[in-house]
Amino acid sequence: MTAGTVHGVGLGPGAQDLMSVRADRLLRGARHVAYFRKAGRPGQARRIIEGMLRPDAVEFPMDYPVTTEIPLDDPRYAATLAAFYEDCAAHLRALAEGGEDVVVLAEGDPFFYGSFMHLYTRLLPHVPVRVVPGITGMAAAWAASGAPITWGDDVLTVAPATLPEAELTRRIAQTDALVVMKIGQNLAKLKRAIAAAGREAVLVEYAAMPEERVRPLHEVDKAPYFSIALIHGQGRRP
Amino acid sequence: MTAGTVHGVGLGPGAQDLMSVRADRLLRGARHVAYFRKAGRPGQARRIIEGMLRPDAVEFPMDYPVTTEIPLDDPRYAATLAAFYEDCAAHLRALAEGGEDVVVLAEGDPFFYGSFMHLYTRLLPHVPVRVVPGITGMAAAWAASGAPITWGDDVLTVAPATLPEAELTRRIAQTDALVVMKIGQNLAKLKRAIAAAGREAVLVEYAAMPEERVRPLHEVDKAPYFSIALIHGQGRRP
Repeated sequence: MTAGTVHGVGLGPGAQDLMSVRADRLLRGARHVAYFRKAGRPGQARRIIEGMLRPDAVEFPMDYPVTTEIPLDDPRYAATLAAFYEDCAAHLRALAEGGEDVVVLAEGDPFFYGSFMHLYTRLLPHVPVRVVPGITGMAAAWAASGAPITWGDDVLTVAPATLPEAELTRRIAQTDALVVMKIGQNLAKLKRAIAAAGREAVLVEYAAMPEERVRPLHEVDKAPYFSIALIHGQGRRP
Repeated sequence: MTAGTVHGVGLGPGAQDLMSVRADRLLRGARHVAYFRKAGRPGQARRIIEGMLRPDAVEFPMDYPVTTEIPLDDPRYAATLAAFYEDCAAHLRALAEGGEDVVVLAEGDPFFYGSFMHLYTRLLPHVPVRVVPGITGMAAAWAASGAPITWGDDVLTVAPATLPEAELTRRIAQTDALVVMKIGQNLAKLKRAIAAAGREAVLVEYAAMPEERVRPLHEVDKAPYFSIALIHGQGRRP
């Protein structure tokens, strides 16, 4: 029997028509569709593809066993997640070894942060895996902001707000253009770092979604999970 | 009369089916399509959309008056390009003011380097302009490389190889993950900077195109325009 292929498919930032034509075709034809979600929630990836699946599509939700209950640096966090990814990968591998193709949903781009890559490395030695790149959430954020992010020879830094404050401040001071992800609980720290670096940023919430909103970062007191901070580059512009 | 809209449409990295569904629909329905190209060449953007246009679509090629003939830091370079962008924007503005929608092709993403943004800032005060984000060339490059670019709390730096060698070296040394664009004539300098920073990179040529190729950077002696160097992040991976 020929093994099936596991497709890690980038869904883009959230609007269904910002998915690639390749992703759209794969999804609409898929017999098996897997996606991560927080336990008890429908999940953002599944929400994006609402109405696109075949009536006979078999769904495989993968419920994260932990999100913020255990600190990231606790060894139990890594162990719990490793076991979870092993289980998910084993299920997808069995489907592929049984000849079935599987589409795994990935918000944004599958190789840019995110969880799909933890399945990818576990599946790669065993079954065919292909990746469909996607429009990143940050690209939707700078489109929403109404201004280009990089010009000419600008350097762009993409940093998670989870970094220590001193490092975050240094990186903000030393770059032309900036994207900050993973803000959530780190909003106050990020605002201090931006101010300490003498810069100004905008916060884009829910880019490419109906709730899209753009504000100066210093006016923001609470940032949802789907928010990205930007500093626009000011490089060469004839 | 209602003004038409100028749409800056991200085409993605080069494969037609890596365009977004929104870009695909806009292009197939477009009556007016504008794109940049090097004089005397068909142009990469136009090549990507081959076969997609309506039979009655009116094309407006915008031929760069200079590419590498005048150094970037020569004032004549900026002046020549500024006059060129003014002319192009005036034409697009006249179309929109006459009630016509226009699609302007942008390789990759319209707000991530590239030329569309020079029209965008000139058109924005006068006519409606909308931007459709796209899959970046770098996302296609890391998909082609077969490994995720960023994990966990990795910092990603995107730098043009046009930077001075010392700055390039410092930025390569200080980042987790790296993307280098605009390599071309700067290949030797980039190779020295990577070595001086004690890192190793891969070069991805023609990502998502039929000629796609991935090699260790140190083995490469000549880099085509469509090439991107990558250093993959090694962050947290449970």
